[in-house]
Amino acid sequence: MAFTVYLSGEIHTNWREEIKRGAAAKGLNITFTSAVTDHDASDAAGDHLGPESSSFWRDHKSAKVNAIRTKTLIEQSDLVVVRFGDKYKQWNAAFDAGYCAALGKPYVTLHAEDIIHPLKEVDAAALAWATTTEQVVDILAYVLRD
Amino acid sequence: MAFTVYLSGEIHTNWREEIKRGAAAKGLNITFTSAVTDHDASDAAGDHLGPESSSFWRDHKSAKVNAIRTKTLIEQSDLVVVRFGDKYKQWNAAFDAGYCAALGKPYVTLHAEDIIHPLKEVDAAALAWATTTEQVVDILAYVLRD
Amino acid sequence: MAFTVYLSGEIHTNWREEIKRGAAAKGLNITFTSAVTDHDASDAAGDHLGPESSSFWRDHKSAKVNAIRTKTLIEQSDLVVVRFGDKYKQWNAAFDAGYCAALGKPYVTLHAEDIIHPLKEVDAAALAWATTTEQVVDILAYVLRD
Amino acid sequence: MAFTVYLSGEIHTNWREEIKRGAAAKGLNITFTSAVTDHDASDAAGDHLGPESSSFWRDHKSAKVNAIRTKTLIEQSDLVVVRFGDKYKQWNAAFDAGYCAALGKPYVTLHAEDIIHPLKEVDAAALAWATTTEQVVDILAYVLRD
Amino acid sequence: MAFTVYLSGEIHTNWREEIKRGAAAKGLNITFTSAVTDHDASDAAGDHLGPESSSFWRDHKSAKVNAIRTKTLIEQSDLVVVRFGDKYKQWNAAFDAGYCAALGKPYVTLHAEDIIHPLKEVDAAALAWATTTEQVVDILAYVLRD
Amino acid sequence: MAFTVYLSGEIHTNWREEIKRGAAAKGLNITFTSAVTDHDASDAAGDHLGPESSSFWRDHKSAKVNAIRTKTLIEQSDLVVVRFGDKYKQWNAAFDAGYCAALGKPYVTLHAEDIIHPLKEVDAAALAWATTTEQVVDILAYVLRD
Amino acid sequence: MAFTVYLSGEIHTNWREEIKRGAAAKGLNITFTSAVTDHDASDAAGDHLGPESSSFWRDHKSAKVNAIRTKTLIEQSDLVVVRFGDKYKQWNAAFDAGYCAALGKPYVTLHAEDIIHPLKEVDAAALAWATTTEQVVDILAYVLRD
Amino acid sequence: MAFTVYLSGEIHTNWREEIKRGAAAKGLNITFTSAVTDHDASDAAGDHLGPESSSFWRDHKSAKVNAIRTKTLIEQSDLVVVRFGDKYKQWNAAFDAGYCAALGKPYVTLHAEDIIHPLKEVDAAALAWATTTEQVVDILAYVLRD
Repeated sequence: MAFTVYLSGEIHTNWREEIKRGAAAKGLNITFTSAVTDHDASDAAGDHLGPESSSFWRDHKSAKVNAIRTKTLIEQSDLVVVRFGDKYKQWNAAFDAGYCAALGKPYVTLHAEDIIHPLKEVDAAALAWATTTEQVVDILAYVLRD
Repeated sequence: MAFTVYLSGEIHTNWREEIKRGAAAKGLNITFTSAVTDHDASDAAGDHLGPESSSFWRDHKSAKVNAIRTKTLIEQSDLVVVRFGDKYKQWNAAFDAGYCAALGKPYVTLHAEDIIHPLKEVDAAALAWATTTEQVVDILAYVLRD
Repeated sequence: MAFTVYLSGEIHTNWREEIKRGAAAKGLNITFTSAVTDHDASDAAGDHLGPESSSFWRDHKSAKVNAIRTKTLIEQSDLVVVRFGDKYKQWNAAFDAGYCAALGKPYVTLHAEDIIHPLKEVDAAALAWATTTEQVVDILAYVLRD
Repeated sequence: MAFTVYLSGEIHTNWREEIKRGAAAKGLNITFTSAVTDHDASDAAGDHLGPESSSFWRDHKSAKVNAIRTKTLIEQSDLVVVRFGDKYKQWNAAFDAGYCAALGKPYVTLHAEDIIHPLKEVDAAALAWATTTEQVVDILAYVLRD
Repeated sequence: MAFTVYLSGEIHTNWREEIKRGAAAKGLNITFTSAVTDHDASDAAGDHLGPESSSFWRDHKSAKVNAIRTKTLIEQSDLVVVRFGDKYKQWNAAFDAGYCAALGKPYVTLHAEDIIHPLKEVDAAALAWATTTEQVVDILAYVLRD
Repeated sequence: MAFTVYLSGEIHTNWREEIKRGAAAKGLNITFTSAVTDHDASDAAGDHLGPESSSFWRDHKSAKVNAIRTKTLIEQSDLVVVRFGDKYKQWNAAFDAGYCAALGKPYVTLHAEDIIHPLKEVDAAALAWATTTEQVVDILAYVLRD
Repeated sequence: MAFTVYLSGEIHTNWREEIKRGAAAKGLNITFTSAVTDHDASDAAGDHLGPESSSFWRDHKSAKVNAIRTKTLIEQSDLVVVRFGDKYKQWNAAFDAGYCAALGKPYVTLHAEDIIHPLKEVDAAALAWATTTEQVVDILAYVLRD
Repeated sequence: MAFTVYLSGEIHTNWREEIKRGAAAKGLNITFTSAVTDHDASDAAGDHLGPESSSFWRDHKSAKVNAIRTKTLIEQSDLVVVRFGDKYKQWNAAFDAGYCAALGKPYVTLHAEDIIHPLKEVDAAALAWATTTEQVVDILAYVLRD
């Protein structure tokens, strides 16, 4: 059984690599996808179309260019893992979760206990909440067993 | 011309009242809807179904009971205004925005300039970004003119 | 705020009346709908189209005639309450729940504690689980508050 | 001609193996999928995410983890076979049937004559009712002929 | 309980009037809709847009103008009754039935026994088959009972 | 029979008024809707949200604010009339037609003979092509007859 | 460029073979699919599930078993060719056309000139009308050119 | 990462070849598709089905035959690039953009600065606006990076 899993959210820790390594170690047949996770490149995505003097419009252009990739990959995935770390606002992660919820696309959240309360609406529409990347890998291994 | 506008997000300032008053002052034919904005009642929504010892499950139950209302009202609205204030995580607001984006439901954001960057994905899928409630009312008045 | 609530499942106790009375007592603006709950009439729904010698086809005809009503009313409702009692198979109630789940239509379940385990998949896609009709009314009153 | 067939329902008899063997004996090009059918593992699916003291929430977590697999596989299938045996409530099987009905996904039921009446709504939305696994295989062979 | 019923098919007998009279006699709250049933006016629907020398294009234009009405009314209806008489090809009636089937819109057929075989695919996706207008009215009365 | 008709396209001639007057003269029960047709106000729609130094972003903001209205009204209409005049590019009119085509929303075009060729893709997905406002009114009167 | 083409309708002439041979002669990369076209086998499709004494229910069972195949193949195709010959009612062909129309699935019709009028609604929603299998092959060759 | 990109619009310059060459030079895994871009063949697409004396119907037939190809390819693509040149009306390009917008299919526009204003509605629903084919290739390279 094969799965495509989109990894959404935090880009400042190596949680994506931990999940990929864990899945590989268990021999799972999973294709992992994600947004461009190079922060500077992502912020500059719109610069390929010319410079902007306004920071709002520079961000706007970049976010839309990034959406060409993320929208397609989320819709093509079987499962989305949404990670919330302990820094930054990460509204894009919550946005991806809401996007999945409206599509009926299954997603699981990955976050520590101390942010249960502000994430309650996001968790309420998720199919699972994990606190460690090991748990995510365990769930994937279970879901994909023959 | 009549419109139904769902007001999503921050519940600690009176932005909803400002918009309602502004719309009433201009004689706009708008029905405003929102989640239950009484914070304590909202957190206790699930308690009607019995107590929980785990904070995760208490939040989970309440978030789902609240979703009975919010999911229906968002889907019935013509426009959603999503407000991000200067406090709290407000992931539910970003979740609502993502939900709207996937449904193709028009939404506008309402937030200050200093959070442009973390909200760039949310703003990229919005039909407008306003910084004041007056601007929101002005937009509504324009959109609804005969 | 107005709501349309479809009451699905058990037809051998008066749970529908309890909910309707409770909602009326609280002054809630709710239109309640349901299948035809007269058991004999429901089983004979297809007889209007002529008799059948095979019990399978008699049931088949009746179930389809009933579906003209139930499919439309479920799709027009804002919320479905699915009741599982202590007798009978009630596969139609679970069928309605699955139907709602695929449509993204919010539903809540109403059943006793002793059938938690066999209903776990049905409860997993529900927005709430209630054990008494009072709880259902309380939830409705909360959801519809101004 | 190739088909993907999801086998839903009863996990206490070997009906899935009978269908797979029958299809293989006829050389049919069918990929069979199903939920995890190891009962204990299925009930414990949520334990990978930590223990629960409440049986409701343990079941809830497990049912949702299982849904990651079942929802995706049902949506990817060309046909669903829903089996009702002579034991247990099997509400999850009826739930899957309702889910298919709302999606417009073809399904056939497999059950004995003595439960025709309680399954009439489930059968009414099915494309066929079989009483033996041989009949299911015969239908598959017919449907897939060149 | 109110219903909107679209009456599709044969325009050479007064079956529509029989159903309307029957429903009125029983006090049913039903809005009946249909295509323009004035045969000459229907064939000439496209002439409002100028004459055509080719009979194919004259028919084409008229059929499309008629579709402005029929497509909308079918989609707005709760139930479609599709009538097949003993004359003419009536492919448009079968077309409407297929259209309903793909939309998941409930429909019932109304035709005599002698055309059961050629209508088997049309009947297979219907929720009922009636042979008389009295049966249709009886079904409507049953479906709409309080 | 009542209809909602959205009038899309050219804003430099009085074709909208001609259709409204014609429909009123015939006593048709039609609600007409459209974009804001005051050209200057439409171009300035985004200015309510603050000035822009770049003409691209000014246009962008205004077009999105206008979309709050047009997207909703097109989706709520039963029929769209798309007018192409003899001046300007009118790409927004062709955009609206494509939008309708993808939604399955019926639309008719209104344009002179000399632009048949460049509009062939737009006309191919339309349900009618009219050359005068009188023809549009005639079609509406025909479609809405009792 | 590759295409999947479903061939619907008449099963008493060899039009399917003519199209397949013509497409092969031109080297087109097309997968052709269709219902089971062995008339007797098709009528007996439901017999695999046991005999029926009523001709209506025998036809009903067979038509539904056939729908397992046809519904899936139509939905998986890129184009449907619907053939109307000079014999039989062929309501199933018109039903398939209506099904395609509601799905937004492109289809072309293949029929002689003498049945233009009764097929006008079916042709009105088609993307082409051909009178010979050579024309169908020519269109396919054109559509698939590099 | 692989992508399918549909190239819509202008057929009088070699912008398609420039994008294909640029993507090949960067080793991008992209399948490019488009309408038939041989202008004369495209205008004659309907002639395969017989001659027409009216220019409207000749165009109509050809546009519909072309739609068999374009509708399918647009729906199968991950991204659409819509090109507006400095000649001709190009309403079909704007139509394709509107079609994409309603489907939620990502598209980017490619046009010079001097037509920003008439394209504002088309650009408003796009995920990017490019002025050169080099920019389009740069965006594709960015979007597809590992």
